[in-house]
Amino acid sequence: MSITHPKGFKASGVAAGLKQNGLDVALVLNDGPDATVAGVFTANRVKAAPVVWSQQVVRGGVVRAVVLNSGGANACTGHQGFQDTHATAEHVASVLGGLGAGDVAVCSTGLIGELLPMDKLIPGVTAAAKALDKDGGLAAAEAIMTTDTRPKTAVAAGAGWSVGGMAKGAGMLAPGLATMLSVLTTDAVADSVALDAALREACRVTFDRVDSDGCMSTNDTVLLLANGASGIAPSQEELTAAVTAACHELAQQLISDAEGATKQVAIEVVGAASDGDAVEVGRSVARNNLVKTALFGNDPNWGRILAAVGTTAAAFEPDALDVAVNGVWVCKGGAAAADRSTVDLAGRDVTIRIDLHAGSAEATIWTNDLSHAYVHENSAYST
Amino acid sequence: MSITHPKGFKASGVAAGLKQNGLDVALVLNDGPDATVAGVFTANRVKAAPVVWSQQVVRGGVVRAVVLNSGGANACTGHQGFQDTHATAEHVASVLGGLGAGDVAVCSTGLIGELLPMDKLIPGVTAAAKALDKDGGLAAAEAIMTTDTRPKTAVAAGAGWSVGGMAKGAGMLAPGLATMLSVLTTDAVADSVALDAALREACRVTFDRVDSDGCMSTNDTVLLLANGASGIAPSQEELTAAVTAACHELAQQLISDAEGATKQVAIEVVGAASDGDAVEVGRSVARNNLVKTALFGNDPNWGRILAAVGTTAAAFEPDALDVAVNGVWVCKGGAAAADRSTVDLAGRDVTIRIDLHAGSAEATIWTNDLSHAYVHENSAYST
Repeated sequence: MSITHPKGFKASGVAAGLKQNGLDVALVLNDGPDATVAGVFTANRVKAAPVVWSQQVVRGGVVRAVVLNSGGANACTGHQGFQDTHATAEHVASVLGGLGAGDVAVCSTGLIGELLPMDKLIPGVTAAAKALDKDGGLAAAEAIMTTDTRPKTAVAAGAGWSVGGMAKGAGMLAPGLATMLSVLTTDAVADSVALDAALREACRVTFDRVDSDGCMSTNDTVLLLANGASGIAPSQEELTAAVTAACHELAQQLISDAEGATKQVAIEVVGAASDGDAVEVGRSVARNNLVKTALFGNDPNWGRILAAVGTTAAAFEPDALDVAVNGVWVCKGGAAAADRSTVDLAGRDVTIRIDLHAGSAEATIWTNDLSHAYVHENSAYST
Repeated sequence: MSITHPKGFKASGVAAGLKQNGLDVALVLNDGPDATVAGVFTANRVKAAPVVWSQQVVRGGVVRAVVLNSGGANACTGHQGFQDTHATAEHVASVLGGLGAGDVAVCSTGLIGELLPMDKLIPGVTAAAKALDKDGGLAAAEAIMTTDTRPKTAVAAGAGWSVGGMAKGAGMLAPGLATMLSVLTTDAVADSVALDAALREACRVTFDRVDSDGCMSTNDTVLLLANGASGIAPSQEELTAAVTAACHELAQQLISDAEGATKQVAIEVVGAASDGDAVEVGRSVARNNLVKTALFGNDPNWGRILAAVGTTAAAFEPDALDVAVNGVWVCKGGAAAADRSTVDLAGRDVTIRIDLHAGSAEATIWTNDLSHAYVHENSAYST
């Protein structure tokens, strides 16, 4: 269902030969009546050509179509790379008719540093335009997969309107902004200011709090398209809630499919002096390779957690820190408490709860363990 | 020869049963005539009891003996942990005679969060005092090993005086300050102000630029002891140069013995607007798991390197970045240049050179790849 669940959107996914096998070109068409848009992009200063292009397009406030490809990131490809992105948008506009290149956002994902094979991509776009269908959401979600093992889709229902979403991402997942590709659609009536507010808040508490491996991509893009086809204009709160729900669902699917992961870890930081402190502590723990390998080894090594907390500038006293792993308070007051052997780490889901005893703010960061399979996937293949 | 190479120092290493096998208690004695000292300690806010103790002792400017143990970090051990450190220093003073606990620095390394077995440590200290010998430097270096595969020692010669050093460290190596245990000795005549200046500058360009896995320890300590036994007072420049040479040698031994590493990587950042920018860029690349796994896979994946550079706040233009891997400029002006297949990554030593084209400052950060063996060592054993 995905992005074609809301009224008035069509999508498709086709195989153009950019990848060795499988679908690799996706197209999303907004049939209107409106075509408002908001976008959130990578904070990485090394930005792929399609990110630079789509930032300009989104700034105009109108997007009628999004073309996405896997099999190549078109990042670090110089002037030719940007011209290729422009040509792709031109071709989408031409085959769909009635729109210009400036109405078309472009997203790419795959290996950095190589030009896209335009002789394959352009015919792929033509085929994708022919395949556009009001049930095409799943095919589009499949076409943007790289090392993902499954397509990622979500739907959040409003009162008479809905939000649909798809995403790809299985590595190079880290904060910044929205660390993967995602397109969200809604048939709600909403201008680009309302969409922007909803999308930024949704990303802040979902995609931005996913940190699989601390590595920020050059291509991250999240787009939210609205067409008003439901005729219903929800309040800002209702819109933000539905977009957040869809983003949360997609973010959880991203982290659960992270490369080589055997654990899905929620790091809940409570008792923080501020949201920022809670997020900083959570990220420091999420990015610590010694914590991550310990989790892979089913070892509730709270000392490594404290060492990671200790590298932050957050407000706390070292001898007031409490840490629970899967509900067992193995550390109280900065020292050993419950016997670590009583912690059950056999399952896939792990919760680490850190109480800073410095205030009432809290935040949860989602991460994974660091496994042999992560090393294998990221050393054996160029991605 | 290590720390007993300079005149007037004795050392020992004995097995006290803190570890399952091997030497685990080391003692270093300065026979004078002087007993000046400088120390550099972890920047981690969660500091082990021996770090808190030794910081106080070093502040006094005089240290006559250092006791070190492996088999337990005595970190996150609360009041009892601090009392145990104090009791250890008291016992050293008592068995050596003629000094007080405040003349004794203490260093510990091993698992965080567990109390030391004082019933084994105290007899071990007694034995170590009996074993003190002017040729005991190597035994002491062995006694502080944890996951290290070999003892680490160095000597730097001055004109009629010298610097000796030992270090341990094979993981949890990251900047901050001096991320491991190290004791340096010299028979030069130097007051604690001169020693402090020499040691801080030496650490800044050696230990502080080692970043094996981005993880900062709770126990890092580097001590420099001087006794003036040579009767020679070198200039500050001479002293700093010799201490830096010894620290550089030890730092290289640390990174070459890092847990599970198959590559020893020098990240040379040139053309930076400032030293700080160069170090920030080098560390960002050194800590990027996707770069590290690519190196393990012999893949000169410069796109991942650019993505890591792009997350920093350093001054640079993305389309002016050049990257060479083992001398081959695979990226020029932010885009592909020489064919990546021409890069030879078969050997253990790898050099990544990044030209920011933003100034004339430069810095080198030393790191490792991220291998299956790293994951194995840090998941299968609690350290």
